Amino acid sequence: MEIVRVAGWVFEKRDLGGIIFILLRDSTGIIQVTWSRKRGDKEIGRKMKKLKINDVIEVRGEVKKEEQAPNGVEIIPHTLRVLNEAEHPLPLDPTGKIDAGLETRLNLRPLDLINPKRNAIFRIKSEVLRLTREFLRDRGFLEVITPKIIATATEGGAELFPVPYFEVTAFLAQSPQLYKEELTIPFERVFEIGTYFRAEPFNTNRHLNEFVSIDIEAAFHTYEDVMKVAEELIVHVYKRLNEGMEEELKLLNLDLRIPQTPFPRVKYDEIMEKLRGIGVKIESGEDIKMEHLESLKDERTEGYYFIIDWPSKVKTFYTKDKEDREGYTNSFDLMYRELEIGSGGERIHKYNDLIKKMRKMGLSIDNFRHHLVFYKCGMPPHAGWGIGLDRLMMSILGFKNIRETVLYPRDRFRLVP
Amino acid sequence: MEIVRVAGWVFEKRDLGGIIFILLRDSTGIIQVTWSRKRGDKEIGRKMKKLKINDVIEVRGEVKKEEQAPNGVEIIPHTLRVLNEAEHPLPLDPTGKIDAGLETRLNLRPLDLINPKRNAIFRIKSEVLRLTREFLRDRGFLEVITPKIIATATEGGAELFPVPYFEVTAFLAQSPQLYKEELTIPFERVFEIGTYFRAEPFNTNRHLNEFVSIDIEAAFHTYEDVMKVAEELIVHVYKRLNEGMEEELKLLNLDLRIPQTPFPRVKYDEIMEKLRGIGVKIESGEDIKMEHLESLKDERTEGYYFIIDWPSKVKTFYTKDKEDREGYTNSFDLMYRELEIGSGGERIHKYNDLIKKMRKMGLSIDNFRHHLVFYKCGMPPHAGWGIGLDRLMMSILGFKNIRETVLYPRDRFRLVP
Repeated sequence: MEIVRVAGWVFEKRDLGGIIFILLRDSTGIIQVTWSRKRGDKEIGRKMKKLKINDVIEVRGEVKKEEQAPNGVEIIPHTLRVLNEAEHPLPLDPTGKIDAGLETRLNLRPLDLINPKRNAIFRIKSEVLRLTREFLRDRGFLEVITPKIIATATEGGAELFPVPYFEVTAFLAQSPQLYKEELTIPFERVFEIGTYFRAEPFNTNRHLNEFVSIDIEAAFHTYEDVMKVAEELIVHVYKRLNEGMEEELKLLNLDLRIPQTPFPRVKYDEIMEKLRGIGVKIESGEDIKMEHLESLKDERTEGYYFIIDWPSKVKTFYTKDKEDREGYTNSFDLMYRELEIGSGGERIHKYNDLIKKMRKMGLSIDNFRHHLVFYKCGMPPHAGWGIGLDRLMMSILGFKNIRETVLYPRDRFRLVP
Repeated sequence: MEIVRVAGWVFEKRDLGGIIFILLRDSTGIIQVTWSRKRGDKEIGRKMKKLKINDVIEVRGEVKKEEQAPNGVEIIPHTLRVLNEAEHPLPLDPTGKIDAGLETRLNLRPLDLINPKRNAIFRIKSEVLRLTREFLRDRGFLEVITPKIIATATEGGAELFPVPYFEVTAFLAQSPQLYKEELTIPFERVFEIGTYFRAEPFNTNRHLNEFVSIDIEAAFHTYEDVMKVAEELIVHVYKRLNEGMEEELKLLNLDLRIPQTPFPRVKYDEIMEKLRGIGVKIESGEDIKMEHLESLKDERTEGYYFIIDWPSKVKTFYTKDKEDREGYTNSFDLMYRELEIGSGGERIHKYNDLIKKMRKMGLSIDNFRHHLVFYKCGMPPHAGWGIGLDRLMMSILGFKNIRETVLYPRDRFRLVP
């Protein structure tokens, strides 16, 4: 006779009078606890009768085979302690039988996450983090942590959240860009997975004001080299999820097909031409919007692909211009269908070229002096990218709303819980 | 004949006229490149003569055994390309032969990190991150990511950085405390390693305004249970560093001795008594300061230890009071000698107890309503801790200044680079 102690939550209860079944949930799964009038202790029966969904209990008892139980065994309780009671009605049905709207679910996120499907999303996300780090380490990338409070806007474009920092105003970082570039000097290849911030008043299904970015930067890499790192990373993640997360994927009704490499490389100009071909009014040098891509039907843009060779105008100041084509850069966006999930490219590594580009774009040299000094001290040719973790999750799991892939999203109107 | 291509930085150069040696650095180590007038190409010789420390070069050549070279081989160059030139004098000697003050080194951090000793610190830190996650996952903890912009001060004590968030004022999180507690409901055990912020105008060797915390929270754990998790984690990290980071530890002249478990548990009252015994004027209910502990000589406080059972007064509102002793809590600080590297304890899990404690401490119930709702929905008994990653690094590597363990520290006066 095997005696066990399990603590967890009441997930379901069936009271047939003379026999009471409890499905008890903990982080390892669900187990049945069975009391019967014939053989069970009366006091335990009284307690079982009163139990409500999500009450927290501890059971000690005997494990028995029971073919009709969810995992082939049941526990016959010898003792039962109620550790905390849940007040009913619960503000959200945690079993997921009665589904609520997204707003309500996010307001009550911890309860929402009891639903096995929702729970599976974040077990997969945790695994994606692990697999990503494992892959990048194996490729010689060192994990680094760079500041999230910064003195100067790094990209010069996006709106930043200001932070009063003692006597001065600082900003919340929107990326580790300049730091990861500098760190190629001592470490050659670095990666960081961190939280970043953008102050735009977004109100879409694919933007959040706080997001997690996977960033790499690598000396002596071209943009083609780092595109390879990105596609091989994605294939690695898909393969390993299929091997280790079968149960979670099944819960989400997902059958992950390993993407084929190389991902298509489609030139910016080629996309523009096609768009104009279907009547979209768009000028060369403009950004390509999601709405534009939605109307493009093309086998090359069905899954993951890169849009490469963007005009200098729409890319950041540190992006390297093409040697053989003026006004264009060695850059790319990583796409999944119409969704941009990352971007990157080769960076300028020579001091004079960078100063020239910054002047042309009207940026203050003085604001960047702490960074620019390193371009005179051995800055290597380098390339890198940033991939939005939450958007990568959208692409893997097939979600249209980024909020489904984030525990506690932050947007224009959401700051709690 | 093996032909290789290596790209990297000039780390050292010796020009003997007829023969020129370059030590070339990349992320895998250092390799010697040798040119001799007898057999070498003249053009390559001219280029080698002009090379300066930290110039970025690419060499293609033949690998030959050479016993006198640092790793037993050298490269005889067939081609040599200069990819970027370093301007001399460099603002900081990257070889570490001429050492500079900490301020200068931090101002020029990427150059400082070329110094093999400094470089080793962050290779070890990256490994500590990996080992910590590996250990916690093996113990059933799920990695989560919680918001860094929050609506309400979580601890009610420390000063927070305000952030204008559209129409309202939000704050930068000082810990994931309330989120990790809530997340024990769906996940039972969670961990997060993230960046947090405190707005105190610190000016010490052990405080930063931006820091990285390792946080865990576990349902059905007592404070003794989570102290065990902490000490076993530290032993795991020490053991695995000894096995995998020999080279880095040797560079830092470190011989890591595996700490013995269990770490001593010393009661707060016991420490107070000893302090008063040596003439320190301190009242019961006061916090214990580093200066106090520095004057205590005691074999139990030589390495890692816990100070347990703190008075309710000095602990946060969610800390659980002892059942058998009024005014004291089931809490602990994790110490290394006189340095606090973490703290934790059991948390209140019953709604009424929490409300009572919050009222007693003068906290606004309404500010926390989004969090308090979960105490009525199945909050389990739980315990957890937060350990400062940067302080843990101080204890492992024996640094007195936290800035040595952080790539780009943020303090009262430092916001750049």
